[in-house]
Amino acid sequence: MPATDQLNIVPFVSVENMMDLVLSTGTEIFLRELADYVEEDFLRWESFDKTARVASHSDDGVIELMPTSNGTLYSFKYVNGHPKNTRSGRQTVTAFGVLSNVDSGYPLLLSEMTILTALRTAATSAVVAKHLAPKGARTMAVIGNGAQSEFQALAFKSLLGIDRLRLYDIDPTATERCRRNLAELGLTIEACRSTEEAVEGADIITTVTADKQNATILTDNMIGSGVHINAVGGDCPGKTELHRDILLRSSIFVEYPPQTRVEGEIQQLPQDYPVTEIWRVISGEQVGRQSADQITLFDSVGFATEDFSALRYVHDKLRGSECFEELDLLADPDEPRDLFGMLLRRQALTAA
Amino acid sequence: MPATDQLNIVPFVSVENMMDLVLSTGTEIFLRELADYVEEDFLRWESFDKTARVASHSDDGVIELMPTSNGTLYSFKYVNGHPKNTRSGRQTVTAFGVLSNVDSGYPLLLSEMTILTALRTAATSAVVAKHLAPKGARTMAVIGNGAQSEFQALAFKSLLGIDRLRLYDIDPTATERCRRNLAELGLTIEACRSTEEAVEGADIITTVTADKQNATILTDNMIGSGVHINAVGGDCPGKTELHRDILLRSSIFVEYPPQTRVEGEIQQLPQDYPVTEIWRVISGEQVGRQSADQITLFDSVGFATEDFSALRYVHDKLRGSECFEELDLLADPDEPRDLFGMLLRRQALTAA
Repeated sequence: MPATDQLNIVPFVSVENMMDLVLSTGTEIFLRELADYVEEDFLRWESFDKTARVASHSDDGVIELMPTSNGTLYSFKYVNGHPKNTRSGRQTVTAFGVLSNVDSGYPLLLSEMTILTALRTAATSAVVAKHLAPKGARTMAVIGNGAQSEFQALAFKSLLGIDRLRLYDIDPTATERCRRNLAELGLTIEACRSTEEAVEGADIITTVTADKQNATILTDNMIGSGVHINAVGGDCPGKTELHRDILLRSSIFVEYPPQTRVEGEIQQLPQDYPVTEIWRVISGEQVGRQSADQITLFDSVGFATEDFSALRYVHDKLRGSECFEELDLLADPDEPRDLFGMLLRRQALTAA
Repeated sequence: MPATDQLNIVPFVSVENMMDLVLSTGTEIFLRELADYVEEDFLRWESFDKTARVASHSDDGVIELMPTSNGTLYSFKYVNGHPKNTRSGRQTVTAFGVLSNVDSGYPLLLSEMTILTALRTAATSAVVAKHLAPKGARTMAVIGNGAQSEFQALAFKSLLGIDRLRLYDIDPTATERCRRNLAELGLTIEACRSTEEAVEGADIITTVTADKQNATILTDNMIGSGVHINAVGGDCPGKTELHRDILLRSSIFVEYPPQTRVEGEIQQLPQDYPVTEIWRVISGEQVGRQSADQITLFDSVGFATEDFSALRYVHDKLRGSECFEELDLLADPDEPRDLFGMLLRRQALTAA
């Protein structure tokens, strides 16, 4: 925790400082350490105050707040999703978040979370895959080669030892960019011309496409026995990636069922279709993969506790680091009840 | 709106800049201008997406998120309430907020809101009192002389022409501080030794105490006919200020009934007890004060649209002002989908 005695100050991690924090740590180490925090919080899942996100929908997109608390720390993330933003040179998704002390309600950290969300999503995917992917998996297909693809690739390399990638995107320039970005990071990469080609021989299939619609990125015939599907892209109502038949052949694992049933691939299934909460697998209460030919599916939509883990990790990382600024965010009058007097003293000071 | 072409930048108003913005405008003018924004948004009440606040309760307090949107702009406020905070030199309530563009989901402003909330609460109280207070009101009793008392006094002076104050607090030093803070601002002030004494001859009674309990700051015998009660302090479940009998003699006006029925004075009454939404009075759809001997009660708990108004006002005020910093909050890669590439380019840059 950054040391400050000034009660008005909240440490702030800008985009630039986040990049420096990641780079000075090393991206793969950052992902591994972050994954430990994610796993730790899944292990104490029941201590969290959980609610589905609070969404404000408009014609062009959605703005969401994702709060959670474990009774000691509280966090929330602000995140938007606006598919048309790329037309004006903006990101489809941007985010920032706050970590607070539950005892005082005072914020401990304000951080950019556009980059951090990509990292936490990838770290979470890899944590889950450790429990579900077939033994000895080395090849991953990545369908959708946009903003999150490289983070997914590196997390699976770092946590599972994946060293062969098969990339496909409907936009070949996206595939080429992903391949180029990952070129010197120790992965054997094959750019493919179709999803069919990409999934061939893959032990793990990651889908991380961005279209806001019910798409069928994967169809049933593409999915051989024994694979693990890491479905990341389908994450809001009306946005799915997998054909329903795949779901029916798979063992389905989810984060928080009330949210996933609305936002995930399983919005295609009846509300009472059996799924397994992933924290039960991580905690050892339930078995993940039970056989070599089982198809496992992580229907990932992203949950507030993962952002909590990410903010908690970054907050801890700042100890002894210079990757933050000090933000004068909280009014701190000499005398707590004298807010107006603070204004008067400022007036006297600036008039002097 | 502050001019910036940089998509990564969000204007930030720190506590210091908020003080300078208020002081350079003049506190009373600031309150009047802010009141205009509050009134404007009450007039288009039906265009707002309204939800009760999202609260995370703990033993020592609560952290709340208060989002709203009118389809063009979106805002949320983070606010905590921790009564024991004063023991460690912290504020009971601190807050900050964000205003965003609904079309892109991009934040337009991040601002401190501890000071701004005190201002918007006072401005809202005064806007409402314009419609409910007895004609020619000049004397206001202020029961509870803590952090919000001076703001209430100045808002009522500025918007209603109140020029006589009668102060009471169980802590005489609070009353003395409030009196001293307001000494040179054109008000005749009387420090009183009891609530009974303070309300004597008052046209308006403002209660703004801080105890988190069902208190009885005002009892029925203190309330003469024709007064307007501005009940600000009772604003969460289990926290009220008025004896139930007063409610039964009053015409009750509220902000957003689903929230007020849980948090306001009317939590003491049946769920279907008749109350009037204040926007209907402000818009002229319903009559506020109907007679000189009617007791009117504004059961104020604070609602998200008022924070929206405050952030919208501050955002407009920043045009041509220097009272803000530029925060590198949003990832803005040259190529929207190339988040990882941004990291690589930063690496190349810092290694160079």
